[in-house]
Amino acid sequence: METAVLKLHCPDRGGLVACVSGFVFNHGGNIIASHQHIEQLDNRLFMRVHFCLPDLNGSRERLESDFAAIAAEFEMVYELTYSDVRKRMAIMVSKYDHCLHDLFFRHQYGELHVDIPLVVSNHLDQKEISERFEAEYHHIPVRKDTKAEAEAQVLELFASNQIDFVVLARYMQILSPTFLNAYPNRIINIHHGFLPAFKGARPYHQAYEKGVKIIGATSHYATEDLDMGPIISQETVHVNHSHSAEDMLRMGRDVEKQVLARAVKAHIEDKIMVYNNRTIVFD
Amino acid sequence: METAVLKLHCPDRGGLVACVSGFVFNHGGNIIASHQHIEQLDNRLFMRVHFCLPDLNGSRERLESDFAAIAAEFEMVYELTYSDVRKRMAIMVSKYDHCLHDLFFRHQYGELHVDIPLVVSNHLDQKEISERFEAEYHHIPVRKDTKAEAEAQVLELFASNQIDFVVLARYMQILSPTFLNAYPNRIINIHHGFLPAFKGARPYHQAYEKGVKIIGATSHYATEDLDMGPIISQETVHVNHSHSAEDMLRMGRDVEKQVLARAVKAHIEDKIMVYNNRTIVFD
Amino acid sequence: METAVLKLHCPDRGGLVACVSGFVFNHGGNIIASHQHIEQLDNRLFMRVHFCLPDLNGSRERLESDFAAIAAEFEMVYELTYSDVRKRMAIMVSKYDHCLHDLFFRHQYGELHVDIPLVVSNHLDQKEISERFEAEYHHIPVRKDTKAEAEAQVLELFASNQIDFVVLARYMQILSPTFLNAYPNRIINIHHGFLPAFKGARPYHQAYEKGVKIIGATSHYATEDLDMGPIISQETVHVNHSHSAEDMLRMGRDVEKQVLARAVKAHIEDKIMVYNNRTIVFD
Amino acid sequence: METAVLKLHCPDRGGLVACVSGFVFNHGGNIIASHQHIEQLDNRLFMRVHFCLPDLNGSRERLESDFAAIAAEFEMVYELTYSDVRKRMAIMVSKYDHCLHDLFFRHQYGELHVDIPLVVSNHLDQKEISERFEAEYHHIPVRKDTKAEAEAQVLELFASNQIDFVVLARYMQILSPTFLNAYPNRIINIHHGFLPAFKGARPYHQAYEKGVKIIGATSHYATEDLDMGPIISQETVHVNHSHSAEDMLRMGRDVEKQVLARAVKAHIEDKIMVYNNRTIVFD
Repeated sequence: METAVLKLHCPDRGGLVACVSGFVFNHGGNIIASHQHIEQLDNRLFMRVHFCLPDLNGSRERLESDFAAIAAEFEMVYELTYSDVRKRMAIMVSKYDHCLHDLFFRHQYGELHVDIPLVVSNHLDQKEISERFEAEYHHIPVRKDTKAEAEAQVLELFASNQIDFVVLARYMQILSPTFLNAYPNRIINIHHGFLPAFKGARPYHQAYEKGVKIIGATSHYATEDLDMGPIISQETVHVNHSHSAEDMLRMGRDVEKQVLARAVKAHIEDKIMVYNNRTIVFD
Repeated sequence: METAVLKLHCPDRGGLVACVSGFVFNHGGNIIASHQHIEQLDNRLFMRVHFCLPDLNGSRERLESDFAAIAAEFEMVYELTYSDVRKRMAIMVSKYDHCLHDLFFRHQYGELHVDIPLVVSNHLDQKEISERFEAEYHHIPVRKDTKAEAEAQVLELFASNQIDFVVLARYMQILSPTFLNAYPNRIINIHHGFLPAFKGARPYHQAYEKGVKIIGATSHYATEDLDMGPIISQETVHVNHSHSAEDMLRMGRDVEKQVLARAVKAHIEDKIMVYNNRTIVFD
Repeated sequence: METAVLKLHCPDRGGLVACVSGFVFNHGGNIIASHQHIEQLDNRLFMRVHFCLPDLNGSRERLESDFAAIAAEFEMVYELTYSDVRKRMAIMVSKYDHCLHDLFFRHQYGELHVDIPLVVSNHLDQKEISERFEAEYHHIPVRKDTKAEAEAQVLELFASNQIDFVVLARYMQILSPTFLNAYPNRIINIHHGFLPAFKGARPYHQAYEKGVKIIGATSHYATEDLDMGPIISQETVHVNHSHSAEDMLRMGRDVEKQVLARAVKAHIEDKIMVYNNRTIVFD
Repeated sequence: METAVLKLHCPDRGGLVACVSGFVFNHGGNIIASHQHIEQLDNRLFMRVHFCLPDLNGSRERLESDFAAIAAEFEMVYELTYSDVRKRMAIMVSKYDHCLHDLFFRHQYGELHVDIPLVVSNHLDQKEISERFEAEYHHIPVRKDTKAEAEAQVLELFASNQIDFVVLARYMQILSPTFLNAYPNRIINIHHGFLPAFKGARPYHQAYEKGVKIIGATSHYATEDLDMGPIISQETVHVNHSHSAEDMLRMGRDVEKQVLARAVKAHIEDKIMVYNNRTIVFD
């Protein structure tokens, strides 16, 4: 049976949960799951309602226009999505393929309800695997002098393929503000370090030199401020003096895969909201 | 400001979330947090609503009688509690005092919003610490031939002290069905093993002999079937060949304290529901 | 540079560490890592020495015969392996391919210093992936009446391919004692449950019904006593009431992959010793 | 039976392990545990040998002078300690008492083989508990203009009490270089943040504002460079949007206690070596 997800946030007032759940009920929906969060400092309500649409096929327009009126009244920022409108996800990757591989594998196992029509890379390495998993492979090299052009080419490709969101699965090029702003809170990056420590390059080598006893990985939405976008998921793993930076790279791969997959799955299932550079993830 | 928690479960039907949240709103409550869970196999809804009662002082009776009508209509099993009616918790303990100590310490730090009027023990060891933390200490020894009598004495003590629920903080006596049935789903036990493995005595020694690489602890509601009541919380910790059974005892203490405290806190905050020997914990 | 690993265990006596490390030094070896463990209950020493062989090429026979004399004197059970003699690993698999895939992937990333000449399966499903990773695929169906025959065929295949050890990467057939005894402590199994709980079939469904709050996976050497062989590695993950048995299957896959890979890597690197159905893993 | 621990590091050369273990054997010692680590980048050997001294009582001087000769030859930095010479530990604390309490409690449970003759605090709050656990309580207030004087007073107190090492169990004053240099690699601090992120004040509030999904704590040796000394142990815990900075404080307390206790225990048992601002912890 088809389902829908309604995500919203707005200034908190009495009766909002009752109002929204009543709206769903009155339009024939049955709530499967409902989550709320009140950000105390802002007195702001965040809400996610997942509901069945048993008798609603054909009348989504009415559902939407009726809700628009409520949203206006309560100054809601909201999004309404349907399970039968599958999102379209593009993957950007450079040479390291463990995250790419992992995403394809999970997709094949039915963990990710999404379409993956295309992969973009500045290298040729991942062509074979991408095509085996039935994603078009676009090799778009990036040089300093051609970067703007290359990005324009990628954006065009995304537009013509109706891409909804982008996963940077260890894509090693810095993206321009123009590019990032084309998909606000829709570009998921994996940083192979435990942010906010170890920003920038070679985080495992930084971790080794500091002699930390724990390393980690962070998935976040990409923003102009490098490695500082809203964090979606993090995970850590213990290390000790006997681990070289290479060991950390190996251990890190496992953590990166998990943390990225978790963020991608949450995004696909409309479980993430962003406010003030922080995420609310309704798990 | 005072708050209330409404926990309920009932056969799932359309509109229940709307109905309950509307009820709260119409009685002047404002929802702080609301959790639902649908047990698919049983088509049963579980719901917990935490709400403020800004203008309700004096009219709780009406709230209760109005809700009773709804509950009857939807065949709800429910409980309604108020933050200004603090629960009264009794602790039973034998010789090991790490859990007792930990609970007192967290209480002192304000982590547990509960009264702890009394401690019952079959030994004298914990008298001093109990009294320091202002709990009456009742030394009630248990011998085979006096067990029924001792239990009766404890139950009387609990009754005259209006005890709401009981924590077995490493209480090493087996309780009779009569005793257990006096507080259904209100006696929290800590088992120093990862249930359902390692039931019964000396679980760390069992774990050592099996050569397991992980040990754990389990907090659960006590039932007649020893160590088989509904599980509330579990935690594990890695061990290896270099750890003796004594090391596991030491490592286990840390895990036991955490797992018991987590269960006690969830119980105090009315976050646990029990159905079919499983718990729903709305965290 | 080539290295060697010497693993041994014997009754503990004074001077053994000095004796063994002196032996290595006198034969031109330089110790890279050395681990000891004394099993107190048995007064038994376990030792693993990893050393470089800078000037020893050509004279391994003398090293071996000299050590044999020491081993006899101290009643040592021992094994001496060389890094330039790569082990040969066979994988047996049925329909679930996540562990198979993961092992191939790690092999490709250089995490597993081993040869994987062949894969045996009672199904045809994994043929393509096995061949892509350059392992011969042998489809050997198993029916009740042909089981003995099929096992004999597999053993012959292993013999003719000089297989050193076997990984059961979710192989869903029960192996006979004859088969298991052909590779004592050389058949690594992954059980998708936290042993010793949840032996046997459908462990995630068992876990769901019990309402446990943690699930896990266990890698162990396969023995006649089903799911009771020496445990090599275990890992757990938190679950709650909102997770269905299917969710646990999904979460379990991640844990299974990690736990199996960890055991396989430790076996390849000669880090595991078995005594009294327990493992010593020198990590 | 009495035991000794020999810790050393020196440029790596062939035969060092054999040499040291032979030395122990020739002086009547029997090795209980022996750990080595080679820091590849520096070609430096680190070694810890834990051995029994069955027949050595009375002749420790000879053991020491004989080893001094070896140490000179191989340019070793080393330390030799005996289990019957208990270390003397001072605790410094301000207002938060959870770490102090935890250390006392573990001490009472026999987890920490150490003497705790005194507690120093700039407040009066912890007097009662310190005295209950039989540590002298010294209240030494610190004001800007009296800081040097106060520190001098503390150092004198430590000297006259033969203090071996110091634990800063949430001591909220910054110590001067003079003070820190009096106990190089012998002052253990707990930082309530996951270093190197969240240095300085109010790390949980920093963590909250960044919206991190994991918080942690770090124990380390205190050095002049605030919160940057060699890390001994770290631990993390998951948080989400529903946790306030106050929740993080509460969750952090549990982590802080564990991480500090682990570091203190490792220090007491002579398991830590420091080199180039990194620790080798032989666990």
